[in-house]
Amino acid sequence: MQYPEPITKLMESFMKLPGIGPKTAARLAFFVLDMKEDSVLAFAKALVDAKRDLTYCSVCGHITDTDPCYICADPRRDRSVICVVEEPKDVIAMEKMKEYNGLYHVLHGAISPMDGIGPEDISVPDLLKRLRDETVQEVILATNPNIEGEATAMYISRLLKPSGIKVTRIAHGLPVGGDLEYADEVTLSKALEGRREI
Amino acid sequence: MQYPEPITKLMESFMKLPGIGPKTAARLAFFVLDMKEDSVLAFAKALVDAKRDLTYCSVCGHITDTDPCYICADPRRDRSVICVVEEPKDVIAMEKMKEYNGLYHVLHGAISPMDGIGPEDISVPDLLKRLRDETVQEVILATNPNIEGEATAMYISRLLKPSGIKVTRIAHGLPVGGDLEYADEVTLSKALEGRREI
Repeated sequence: MQYPEPITKLMESFMKLPGIGPKTAARLAFFVLDMKEDSVLAFAKALVDAKRDLTYCSVCGHITDTDPCYICADPRRDRSVICVVEEPKDVIAMEKMKEYNGLYHVLHGAISPMDGIGPEDISVPDLLKRLRDETVQEVILATNPNIEGEATAMYISRLLKPSGIKVTRIAHGLPVGGDLEYADEVTLSKALEGRREI
Repeated sequence: MQYPEPITKLMESFMKLPGIGPKTAARLAFFVLDMKEDSVLAFAKALVDAKRDLTYCSVCGHITDTDPCYICADPRRDRSVICVVEEPKDVIAMEKMKEYNGLYHVLHGAISPMDGIGPEDISVPDLLKRLRDETVQEVILATNPNIEGEATAMYISRLLKPSGIKVTRIAHGLPVGGDLEYADEVTLSKALEGRREI
């Protein structure tokens, strides 16, 4: 026995989290022991509450504590545009920008034949259901700019072509504040391809 | 409102831990949402249990769920040697080595006049109390090899000189597997100073 059992158990719990190995887990566990009891109880409660109270919005799939979520329920939102993203985190990223006023659709993943994930495994069917109602005029595909994200965007755009709904893809290019010198060839080629007259 | 409240609270709790900023906190919080409910409940329980069930051993100051701790209570331990360390983590490090069979004394800090920490603020008085009983023949000072640790070791060694108890300091030198080329001058000078005939 190296550590008393309660601390071993706490370390094991920390080690289940991403990016936390045995050393960090030990550091965090010892830190918890030095925390005030109130803070530890609040932490434990926050864990349980987050897991119990949060669900996915039945309309868009975003994470929420009310159903439908605050975005879907907001009457000031433009219901003619749906932005399709992979994860709830992406909705948060878009919302931080404070420029987009439409709705979202969270796929909860991306198509990845290598991992056996097809369109039916992510919420593509739910998206199609939402589009049957005719208020939607544009679908913005904001899946990640990687192989799976591109494949998913491509798949959805082909699927929606017959419906006549406008389908757009967010732009690829150099990130603002980036450096041409350090940009990879693929990004640079996309940036060149997507050039616009000014 | 960017995140639903339960997730904001969980992120805030994670951010109280050392080395966890807003981005990591968000990543961990979202990870928790995808964990099984059982695991989350176990995590919350581990937090509360660790805080509630663990105390410091009334003899040596090591972290424990029984009092005295398993080391102090072990009859096979050599009671004539006490190894003085700064933190409970240091006891664990020593125990991992599996070569030391004496007792420990955890100071819970080191003397640091800059931070206003004197000998009375760490458990030096408790150490002196333990040494009054005459079974102890050697005190090994295993405080950290930095300014505070050295000062603490120096202070304790001077304090114990009149008592006639043998006081030793763990060796400084090159770490095993290290490289002479990359060793700093102070370590190298300590290694030279501490050279032994072979």
